[in-house]
Amino acid sequence: MKIDRMQAFSDGVYAILITILVLDFKVPDYHAGSLLMAVLRQWPTMFAYIVSFLYVGTIWLFHHDFFQTLKETNTGLNVINLVMLFSVTLIDYPTALVANTLISQNRTDMQVAFVYYDIIALFISFTFAWLYTYVRNHPEMTRMKSDQPTFYQAIKYDPVRSVLIYGAAIVATFFSIWLGAFLLLAGVGYHFVAYLRLSKSMQKSIREANNGEYK
Amino acid sequence: MKIDRMQAFSDGVYAILITILVLDFKVPDYHAGSLLMAVLRQWPTMFAYIVSFLYVGTIWLFHHDFFQTLKETNTGLNVINLVMLFSVTLIDYPTALVANTLISQNRTDMQVAFVYYDIIALFISFTFAWLYTYVRNHPEMTRMKSDQPTFYQAIKYDPVRSVLIYGAAIVATFFSIWLGAFLLLAGVGYHFVAYLRLSKSMQKSIREANNGEYK
Amino acid sequence: MKIDRMQAFSDGVYAILITILVLDFKVPDYHAGSLLMAVLRQWPTMFAYIVSFLYVGTIWLFHHDFFQTLKETNTGLNVINLVMLFSVTLIDYPTALVANTLISQNRTDMQVAFVYYDIIALFISFTFAWLYTYVRNHPEMTRMKSDQPTFYQAIKYDPVRSVLIYGAAIVATFFSIWLGAFLLLAGVGYHFVAYLRLSKSMQKSIREANNGEYK
Amino acid sequence: MKIDRMQAFSDGVYAILITILVLDFKVPDYHAGSLLMAVLRQWPTMFAYIVSFLYVGTIWLFHHDFFQTLKETNTGLNVINLVMLFSVTLIDYPTALVANTLISQNRTDMQVAFVYYDIIALFISFTFAWLYTYVRNHPEMTRMKSDQPTFYQAIKYDPVRSVLIYGAAIVATFFSIWLGAFLLLAGVGYHFVAYLRLSKSMQKSIREANNGEYK
Repeated sequence: MKIDRMQAFSDGVYAILITILVLDFKVPDYHAGSLLMAVLRQWPTMFAYIVSFLYVGTIWLFHHDFFQTLKETNTGLNVINLVMLFSVTLIDYPTALVANTLISQNRTDMQVAFVYYDIIALFISFTFAWLYTYVRNHPEMTRMKSDQPTFYQAIKYDPVRSVLIYGAAIVATFFSIWLGAFLLLAGVGYHFVAYLRLSKSMQKSIREANNGEYK
Repeated sequence: MKIDRMQAFSDGVYAILITILVLDFKVPDYHAGSLLMAVLRQWPTMFAYIVSFLYVGTIWLFHHDFFQTLKETNTGLNVINLVMLFSVTLIDYPTALVANTLISQNRTDMQVAFVYYDIIALFISFTFAWLYTYVRNHPEMTRMKSDQPTFYQAIKYDPVRSVLIYGAAIVATFFSIWLGAFLLLAGVGYHFVAYLRLSKSMQKSIREANNGEYK
Repeated sequence: MKIDRMQAFSDGVYAILITILVLDFKVPDYHAGSLLMAVLRQWPTMFAYIVSFLYVGTIWLFHHDFFQTLKETNTGLNVINLVMLFSVTLIDYPTALVANTLISQNRTDMQVAFVYYDIIALFISFTFAWLYTYVRNHPEMTRMKSDQPTFYQAIKYDPVRSVLIYGAAIVATFFSIWLGAFLLLAGVGYHFVAYLRLSKSMQKSIREANNGEYK
Repeated sequence: MKIDRMQAFSDGVYAILITILVLDFKVPDYHAGSLLMAVLRQWPTMFAYIVSFLYVGTIWLFHHDFFQTLKETNTGLNVINLVMLFSVTLIDYPTALVANTLISQNRTDMQVAFVYYDIIALFISFTFAWLYTYVRNHPEMTRMKSDQPTFYQAIKYDPVRSVLIYGAAIVATFFSIWLGAFLLLAGVGYHFVAYLRLSKSMQKSIREANNGEYK
């Protein structure tokens, strides 16, 4: 099965998702002359937007690179991809919850919003672990030849690390909300760093498999 | 007429549709400190979202596989495809209605919402029956050679089965709302199972027509 | 300049436009048990949605076919295409106005909504006239060789006819609102019929230019 | 790394962004019979929409042409592109603020909205300067051979000019709000003119590199 349309559809979903996040910015209620204060009070919306844009953007960059290492798709991968997309679409809502609770600053509500975000991030990490396992068990789908085992050896603990970080974030949130928030940010930052590392490794593998040329 | 742009446009519509379903998640009105309860009370929104994501996702997977069996499009198919897309875009609204009525738990309103969903599902199944009939009558559009009749023989009752399930769901809703809901879910589940079966059959047909290679 | 990305971008805009029209369906305010009446009272939203879906869908089908007759784009065509897309994005708002005024049934407001829709339809027709004129003056951009003059001869009055229909619709709306509405619907219906006719003619031209084959 | 999916994803983001701008048009509250006045009072929404559509449209046209001069992408360019897309998605919100404050006509609020728009425009210009610098330092990514230095010589002051215009707009807004608005419009107009100039120059370069043919 050709992989082009699956990529096009996924690109579409990521593009929409990353763009409709912006709909969380709503013109606030304000008294004439006090728009500045009203806009400044929206800093959590901007903050949550930056984090989620970075998060979804990193996932897309990863998706972009990873699917380039595959030469075809099949029914199983289509279903896993759909579940991955589903998990990523869920990030919009906790983003809005985090922004809202940071504005109202109620401790209990912030915990709920942060833990919600953590749970979705755990779910996303789980779908990645599923994807890795599936592709490793179907080496005929991949373009990488020689060093494929090395490649999967290098990344196989990435989802486990994500799960540990977000799991720790959930636990921490009940004791110190700011430690919880820090761990959540660390998780998103970790994905970005992991992408940069993965990206180099994937490019190298494909280049070697193709003798330095892209097909 | 080349089929690429028609697929790209359809992919776009499906990608948007499946993603804007997520806009149904709205930050609820809640008293400070009670966000958890407010979020938990939104379970019907999550439930309806999961069902509709699965439904639209399955339709996209099917569309993806089925149009791969075609080698060109024409004015007739363009129009049928547009009507199909139209029917699928209608699913967003009853999804919201189902979520809302499950929250307010009024029996009469739930019946209205479920029957609305069933009617749109019937409409979608009808456009699929139309598509099958049209393509079967235009064998020159397809890549599948030898076993095309077998293929259409295998799937021709699928829309009829869908119509029966959703028809039964409508009737049942008036007697037992939960039986109606069960039949509606059975309909969506049936599409997913039917896709998995179809997918194998379509892949086999294309592979044989191409002597094992994709073009 | 390659035309692929321009088509991809345009497909994206049309796909989004035709899909976000569906956001006009909002769960109505209703008393428990009276959802059915509330939903039935929304018939103008469904009606306006069907008309605008047909309208935007027809414009996309036309765009799809017409740009297949071109082999490259240039800065001028890019700008015209952007203005065309702009004009089409404007249709969402009068669609909502028409639906709203049909619900509240105030004669003056309905006239405003219908005339607004007519003006946007006039604007869209004008951008099509601009596109035709531009491409006719740049025959080097087209794939059609021999019968290009015949082709443009056949379609050159189409935008003029649209302008006449929508102009008549505007005038009529002030005397009889239903005649105005009828002419507006006639305009949208005319585009669909014109597309079916054009589609055949464009396909024939490309086929002949390519000796029966698509490139 | 192939550049196709990066373009497709970017096209998707631009297409969505330019289309959801239209969601700012909301059916106003109005008394029966006074829809006309209510719609006319929305002129700032139309005005802000036209400006932002032209702005985002110009950026897309530029993106479309510029990325055609590149033959591959890499991790660095992917990250810069993501930051560019992020900066452009931010334009929706100040567009809505400008429209709102033009309606309520409070001088302080208008200053806030204009300066917000200017700051986002500065940010966008900065990402362009970053992109130019990066690609100039990675000549192996480009298709343009001979006159690449000339090309970057010609455009290298464009982002500097933008920064000066928007910087002047910010300062001016505090003294004369209309001069500030004029400079903001001049900035957007300047991008469009700069695109038309760039477009010719880029086309010429690619054509020469390919001996008059596109690959």
